[in-house]
Amino acid sequence: MRTSENWFPGRLTEMPAGECHDLMGSTSVGRVALVDEAGPVVLPVNYVLDGDTVLFRTSPANSIAPHLDDAKVAFEVDEFDDYTQSGWSVVVRGVASFVAPDELPQDEKARPFPWADGVRTLFVRVTPLSVSGRRLLPG
Amino acid sequence: MRTSENWFPGRLTEMPAGECHDLMGSTSVGRVALVDEAGPVVLPVNYVLDGDTVLFRTSPANSIAPHLDDAKVAFEVDEFDDYTQSGWSVVVRGVASFVAPDELPQDEKARPFPWADGVRTLFVRVTPLSVSGRRLLPG
Repeated sequence: MRTSENWFPGRLTEMPAGECHDLMGSTSVGRVALVDEAGPVVLPVNYVLDGDTVLFRTSPANSIAPHLDDAKVAFEVDEFDDYTQSGWSVVVRGVASFVAPDELPQDEKARPFPWADGVRTLFVRVTPLSVSGRRLLPG
Repeated sequence: MRTSENWFPGRLTEMPAGECHDLMGSTSVGRVALVDEAGPVVLPVNYVLDGDTVLFRTSPANSIAPHLDDAKVAFEVDEFDDYTQSGWSVVVRGVASFVAPDELPQDEKARPFPWADGVRTLFVRVTPLSVSGRRLLPG
């Protein structure tokens, strides 16, 4: 879609931590960025929040899996409106690690349930080192 | 939003290159993943396609700018539907580089116009080394 020159550029504002956390709890799909042998890569995953951490599942056979244990990653969620050219994004930078079964939420409903089929038995937790969020207000 | 256990996991299929290209041309916002001093980071940008490459703008004063010239990056676009737990994503892995004014599309309307205010005078091109896309069909 073409960006129209009729719009004035929107105003970008930082969001407080509470708003970032609330917005992260309002969506189901985020994107995890990691580094493999070939450089940075970014993939969508469905996730749940567990406290301040992000939990998602993948396959232990997945090529990204070896790069998600005790590894630096970033995690992003956003929502944008093409028409008003506005929206928000939250970016977590932190450390990903495999989760042992006894470290998962007790309540099974609080665990992520993969949207895609396949054997996604590996739980990964992203523990934030920093969280930042920005809101782009319509111009 | 909670993922419901009532849904069956969806079926993940690879998309052909043409479909990836068409879908990349249908959206305005993608996420660029790069590596800085602290590890991987991922940020949303509005973009346009220029042939097979991705063009976006940022500020030369932006902390990510030094990591976008002759640097490995990934670029992702997606669209998901929470209700049917389905959607698609396209991931480009490639090289980012600053674009000289004479390498920009002649037609100004074919250049990216930043949604956010600020001095975003730096044009960045992502030249793909690989493009992959996946569609998640409802279960």
